[in-house]
Amino acid sequence: MFHMTDQFSYASLFEPRSIAFIGASTNPAKWGFNILHHILRGEYAGTIYPINPQGGNWLGRPIYKSLQDVPRPIDLAVIIVPKETVADALRQCRDAGIYAAIVVTAGFAETGPEGKALEQDIVSVARQNGIRLVGPNTMGLYSAYPSRLQAVMTASQFTQGSVALVSQSGNLGTSIADRLIRRKIGISRLISSGNEADLTVEDYLDYLETDEKTRIICLYVEGVRDGKRFVNTIRRLAALKPVILLKGGTGSIGAAAAQSHTGALAGSYAVFRGIGRQTNMILADTIDEMVDIAGLLLSQPEIKGRRIGIVTQGGGLGVLSADLCEAAGLEVPPLNERVVAMLDAFLPPFWSRRNPVDLIAPGKVSMITDSTAALLAHADLDAIVLLGLGYMTSRATRWLESAVLPNPVMEEPARRMIEGEMELVDLIARQIQEFNKPILPVIDAVGFDQPGEVNLVRRLDKMGVMAYASPEQAIRALAKVATYYEKRR
Amino acid sequence: MFHMTDQFSYASLFEPRSIAFIGASTNPAKWGFNILHHILRGEYAGTIYPINPQGGNWLGRPIYKSLQDVPRPIDLAVIIVPKETVADALRQCRDAGIYAAIVVTAGFAETGPEGKALEQDIVSVARQNGIRLVGPNTMGLYSAYPSRLQAVMTASQFTQGSVALVSQSGNLGTSIADRLIRRKIGISRLISSGNEADLTVEDYLDYLETDEKTRIICLYVEGVRDGKRFVNTIRRLAALKPVILLKGGTGSIGAAAAQSHTGALAGSYAVFRGIGRQTNMILADTIDEMVDIAGLLLSQPEIKGRRIGIVTQGGGLGVLSADLCEAAGLEVPPLNERVVAMLDAFLPPFWSRRNPVDLIAPGKVSMITDSTAALLAHADLDAIVLLGLGYMTSRATRWLESAVLPNPVMEEPARRMIEGEMELVDLIARQIQEFNKPILPVIDAVGFDQPGEVNLVRRLDKMGVMAYASPEQAIRALAKVATYYEKRR
Repeated sequence: MFHMTDQFSYASLFEPRSIAFIGASTNPAKWGFNILHHILRGEYAGTIYPINPQGGNWLGRPIYKSLQDVPRPIDLAVIIVPKETVADALRQCRDAGIYAAIVVTAGFAETGPEGKALEQDIVSVARQNGIRLVGPNTMGLYSAYPSRLQAVMTASQFTQGSVALVSQSGNLGTSIADRLIRRKIGISRLISSGNEADLTVEDYLDYLETDEKTRIICLYVEGVRDGKRFVNTIRRLAALKPVILLKGGTGSIGAAAAQSHTGALAGSYAVFRGIGRQTNMILADTIDEMVDIAGLLLSQPEIKGRRIGIVTQGGGLGVLSADLCEAAGLEVPPLNERVVAMLDAFLPPFWSRRNPVDLIAPGKVSMITDSTAALLAHADLDAIVLLGLGYMTSRATRWLESAVLPNPVMEEPARRMIEGEMELVDLIARQIQEFNKPILPVIDAVGFDQPGEVNLVRRLDKMGVMAYASPEQAIRALAKVATYYEKRR
Repeated sequence: MFHMTDQFSYASLFEPRSIAFIGASTNPAKWGFNILHHILRGEYAGTIYPINPQGGNWLGRPIYKSLQDVPRPIDLAVIIVPKETVADALRQCRDAGIYAAIVVTAGFAETGPEGKALEQDIVSVARQNGIRLVGPNTMGLYSAYPSRLQAVMTASQFTQGSVALVSQSGNLGTSIADRLIRRKIGISRLISSGNEADLTVEDYLDYLETDEKTRIICLYVEGVRDGKRFVNTIRRLAALKPVILLKGGTGSIGAAAAQSHTGALAGSYAVFRGIGRQTNMILADTIDEMVDIAGLLLSQPEIKGRRIGIVTQGGGLGVLSADLCEAAGLEVPPLNERVVAMLDAFLPPFWSRRNPVDLIAPGKVSMITDSTAALLAHADLDAIVLLGLGYMTSRATRWLESAVLPNPVMEEPARRMIEGEMELVDLIARQIQEFNKPILPVIDAVGFDQPGEVNLVRRLDKMGVMAYASPEQAIRALAKVATYYEKRR
């Protein structure tokens, strides 16, 4: 007998060569318009067949009246039709030899008993016909390789990369993805798992385990169906690749809301924390922290211990950073005599002679990079947090903008200042490689807004080094990553 | 006998009609250049006299060779000369009838015993002559009213407003100021207190207590000299105006670094937390939280209880926000039947029917504002956190940018979408006034980058309503502000 289930493969979902888009709409207010637009805008490399019984055309592209009219083979169906007709659409898929479907349509288990019955119907139809489903009630799926499939509700501008994101909430998926993209962290796959009527978060994790394009996995979970399987999956996966979890429903009201939202029972946070301890899964406290951690894992070498050097251009930031390290369980060890003597040779007489190394206002860029080099080579430190970048560029930019200063006079010194700080970040990027230890550049929030070419954050981005907007963000992420590597060793 | 100390007044510091800038430099690498530039660039409304024994001119403005040559009266001296000559500069001030000085020069108590002796010398000279000092080792002072005095090292672009900032660290002062400015929160006064050889943080707080231009006080403190006076000052002050404290040196290494940095013994954090409990001072955990709290206090009405309504356009953000409220000690009460019935009348059938109110993807802007209005009028809530703004603008912007869509077709619907969301934020700003309750708009981080006129964050800024980039930021600030008002009542 022919085994229908054998027809499905994850390649149909993540590497489809052709897609039937069932429920194409020419009305910009409809998801049937927007998701189609996002797929086309994303320069999907395969062939897409818009389908709507009314036919016509989608801004010049023909709309097929029926799936029957579409040339075969078709790897994947994206379904965005009224909920009562989803089961029928799945039957048509079977007839067309399609075994993978993304069901965007909502109004199922998340709406109550009636919707739940309808959901069971579509699952039955799918199972009978060997079709595997994403969703229903999913925000969609993005797959960077090989086909740049952007079958998502969100208007996000995806970029290819190596972070995968599985989310039990569509808008959280959007929120995390947008932050990753904003911080120039590319995405390999994004899956909004929706109601998980068929494929579940555990299934997607199985796929990502062997997905060579994925180096890091970000996970937003409210609850899981099969706790034992989830633990086993995470155990295997976290041994191979970093898994960063953000848990929704950690409080009683949030848990109740989660149940109403995806129909899943939210697991207690204590249980998830336990899984984290057992399996080396990293637990993020906030959406932003998840992104900070992912960026650190991607952009820096392994941190081999908890001994942190703090290098600052001003006292207060050094003090706060030492506080933060201590609170996060990182060490800020004293400097040995040899290193103090080395730094004495080139630093101004008033430098702090301790860790945090307060350079005060260093006159030359080389004072900063000579300090980081001496610390990494001779101070038995595992990483450096480098504070106060951007001051020079900011001052020079004001010179150039100033109505008070005659521009020709200031152009040359401004150029030298800006180039000095650019050279500094280039050297920092090189030292990370040379010493094979993390150096976390902290550029004040305002430096992220610096326009154009002189933006140090963008310059570091290009060299694959993530900058942090505050010492808090850098140090909290660093502590979690240090623990991750410690457990892995 | 003539009492020298009677000559000093805070008006000389914060409202000087004329300034002697002792140590003007024509070298852009020197602070004697940059601080003078910042004063001139800030359009200081009084008269400034650059002074340097070498004379010459500062980009066309005459430099006086000596303070003796400068027309009188002079209210304030800004001193940035080599540390050995500061005492002499102060004697010249006495001769010129100047009783207030900002000593930017560093190299005093913060550098060790020798510097400490030198600092005692300048304090003696000042005391003998009735001069009061800011610093030494100060980053400077900004005073918005009436004279827009920007006598600071930082190249920040100050804007006038009602938040005062006293910082025992220059770079923390810069960091906080830049964040306030970036979030369109204007500053009334900024004082970097430096080594506090004469005037201390307690003195500045005394001044701010009666300063009518200051509504809110942000404070970065590492340690205080006179604990009893500090407590009494804060007790009086916090009863009048919100005081937000960020404490440096909460850990042992940070405390040691603080001592090396400003020469002050860092007080234990437990003591400061105790002061906070006794006096209704608000304790911020991070630089960003300080700014979030200040913005909330300025831009929203008093929150009269802890009962929070969460309105969201997607489930996950609602779940996380409920978790955050619970963790922060805020309530997310259930909705009463009447409100559920009211919302039933206009919301799509699948809305959550609970708090968090999940509108799913609302088809019309009025669904959101009708919901917030119903909740504020009839649900016995004290504030609303409004999640998921910016999606419509983001989608419409993509339509207009899209290479796939023929622009003329999409211009009209895009314009309608963008206008719809603008109308939404306008209505929200009006509802805050109408119901006299806080509504905190959360616009995802990426929405902050939205260019030009369609930026909802900027639009809210103009209406004096601060937007938050994440639910965490909004809710943590809201909890601290709720406690502040609770204690004040």
